[in-house]
Amino acid sequence: MNKPFFKVINKDPGTKARTGQLQTAHGLIETPVFMPVGTQGTVKGCSPDELRESGSQIILGNTYHLYLRPGHKLIEKAGGLQEFSGWRDPMLTDSGGYQVFSLADLRKVYEDGVVFKSHLDGSSHRFTPESATDIQMSLGSDIMMVLDECPPYPCSAEYAAESVERTSRWAKQCLDKFRNTELKHGYAQALFAIVQGSTIPALRKRSAEALIAMDFPGYAIGGLSIGEPKPVLFEIVELVASLLPCDKPRYLMGMGKPKDIVEGIALGVDMFDCVLPTRNGRKGQVFTWQGPMNVKNAEYKEDGRPIDENCRCYACRNFTRAYIRHLIHVEEMLGRRLASLHNIYFYHDLVRKCREQIKNSTFVTWKNDFLTNYSTTVKSFTN
Amino acid sequence: MNKPFFKVINKDPGTKARTGQLQTAHGLIETPVFMPVGTQGTVKGCSPDELRESGSQIILGNTYHLYLRPGHKLIEKAGGLQEFSGWRDPMLTDSGGYQVFSLADLRKVYEDGVVFKSHLDGSSHRFTPESATDIQMSLGSDIMMVLDECPPYPCSAEYAAESVERTSRWAKQCLDKFRNTELKHGYAQALFAIVQGSTIPALRKRSAEALIAMDFPGYAIGGLSIGEPKPVLFEIVELVASLLPCDKPRYLMGMGKPKDIVEGIALGVDMFDCVLPTRNGRKGQVFTWQGPMNVKNAEYKEDGRPIDENCRCYACRNFTRAYIRHLIHVEEMLGRRLASLHNIYFYHDLVRKCREQIKNSTFVTWKNDFLTNYSTTVKSFTN
Repeated sequence: MNKPFFKVINKDPGTKARTGQLQTAHGLIETPVFMPVGTQGTVKGCSPDELRESGSQIILGNTYHLYLRPGHKLIEKAGGLQEFSGWRDPMLTDSGGYQVFSLADLRKVYEDGVVFKSHLDGSSHRFTPESATDIQMSLGSDIMMVLDECPPYPCSAEYAAESVERTSRWAKQCLDKFRNTELKHGYAQALFAIVQGSTIPALRKRSAEALIAMDFPGYAIGGLSIGEPKPVLFEIVELVASLLPCDKPRYLMGMGKPKDIVEGIALGVDMFDCVLPTRNGRKGQVFTWQGPMNVKNAEYKEDGRPIDENCRCYACRNFTRAYIRHLIHVEEMLGRRLASLHNIYFYHDLVRKCREQIKNSTFVTWKNDFLTNYSTTVKSFTN
Repeated sequence: MNKPFFKVINKDPGTKARTGQLQTAHGLIETPVFMPVGTQGTVKGCSPDELRESGSQIILGNTYHLYLRPGHKLIEKAGGLQEFSGWRDPMLTDSGGYQVFSLADLRKVYEDGVVFKSHLDGSSHRFTPESATDIQMSLGSDIMMVLDECPPYPCSAEYAAESVERTSRWAKQCLDKFRNTELKHGYAQALFAIVQGSTIPALRKRSAEALIAMDFPGYAIGGLSIGEPKPVLFEIVELVASLLPCDKPRYLMGMGKPKDIVEGIALGVDMFDCVLPTRNGRKGQVFTWQGPMNVKNAEYKEDGRPIDENCRCYACRNFTRAYIRHLIHVEEMLGRRLASLHNIYFYHDLVRKCREQIKNSTFVTWKNDFLTNYSTTVKSFTN
């Protein structure tokens, strides 16, 4: 279970960036990696084949959503999330914690877990470290996450400190539960811990140290990208990444603008996930090597070019901006799908380029060029 | 333009069924053929590649919708509907007449055309026989339809008679406009006439004779599947099919339950279109060789079988009823897409089997078996 399954392959001489390989039961993952989010057992708009063709190596599932519908027991009986969904490559599930904490008024934190009301029907449910682990063992994800508490930003130092204690205690309970429970699908699963501590360096350090002492196979940086200023975010990422063991994968949860991912990689992060490629894609917001653009804009009405002339994705190989604009405009599924596919491909291409540059020790120059060129010539919808 | 482009290949000895080949500028079509409906320049939920893989030979576009958004001039500039949409195989467009007549309170018929208000913004527009032809020449469909008037069911004999006169006069105007206008895309387009006359045999006969005298390359039977009893529908189809020239393709507009298509083929119809496969698919209503089923039903919750075990479509090769049920239940695009793809494949498979049976002179026996087996073992959502 807890065997070392991560290997650093290349280290960039100019930054903390590195490439690595993560060996999971469903396949090998080249890091740095971007993980598309498949909340309800599907990455919105994309089939498993399309994800593979787009370069996806691993996708996420959300425990909170899958627990509610169709239910983890049903997925367990179907042979796990991979069998159920037809995505037979690696999967990661969150613990449900983040989603539950986002429910705000609908949940209450206790020492032994969290009680929440379903956003669907208001029914009452409880997640404990043990049940969150058990549910993920039913789902059969290759990488599971501990139940953590993600405090809001800003929050008081007292609350953040309490929350770090709780997160550490829960992490231990998850680990114990995991070690004492028989695997449900016969293949290895790995449990990652999550470093919390808001934006307070001393608390982040305390959290990281407590979790490192428990020897998890991988560590996530949680509680960021929730409203704190960007420099603060990177300061915390840099600090935590420097504290985490070099030989374990580092996963920065939920952060995902292209520039931020490149910065995160430079700070030594190996894994990223974000809903931006699909969520923005559905609205016609697409990413190009010159920056983000809104393909719904009138200026693309008769534009016969692909979204990005340097992109080899399915959408760019086959369809024009004018057509995708029309589809999104008239609310056709195919438009949302093509924009999502393009964005996912773009993100994978971005991290693939980072891996290549790290391997060639040219990452610093490439990174500076990318940051300069990105967002200069195309009208942006965000930065 | 008006060259004979249709060839009957096989005639069934026991019915009026026949197989044929329709040679269009964008490819050869084997008939009988089912044509999926791509209202806004896309068959809802499906990419051009998926349609081809599902067996689609020709798809429809709706002139009314495309005229409003993105506009026929934009599509003309893009090189026609095929270039614009990436579906580079044959396309048929309706004239917009049916959709405009469905607007009821929003339109008014004049002798020279129809004035209507857009369902989108209430803006006022006018279609004349000439403009409907011109718009379709801009769209560049392989098969265009004349502007006709589709009277409601029931309607008075007087109104039906007036409407037949108008439809004949408009057909002539469309033909003249078409013959006197230079092709906009350099490839051949064919203009089909539409037989009207409500459910009154004498009017249907009058309509058919008037249109046959104008020598169109193909004829549609319009004004049916709008509420009249099924026996009446088939009586009219049988009558009109028997009046139409044997060497021209016959297209029964908008009728599309599987049993009805098989009956229509037995009466000598060559072409069908219907929104059922996609519209019902989006709600989880799927077709199987044992009849229609609603994959959303609780009984399929843990069903690990494909929608139809005898189906070779993409959805059935890769996904279970349980997974598709979940996706439709939680309103994921992929569910709507898989069910639509399955249904389209089913319809193509159905007419492919009909072609095969006609070729082997075994159509009557096969038809009786199909009608007996269909809708017996699976709970139906409709009959």
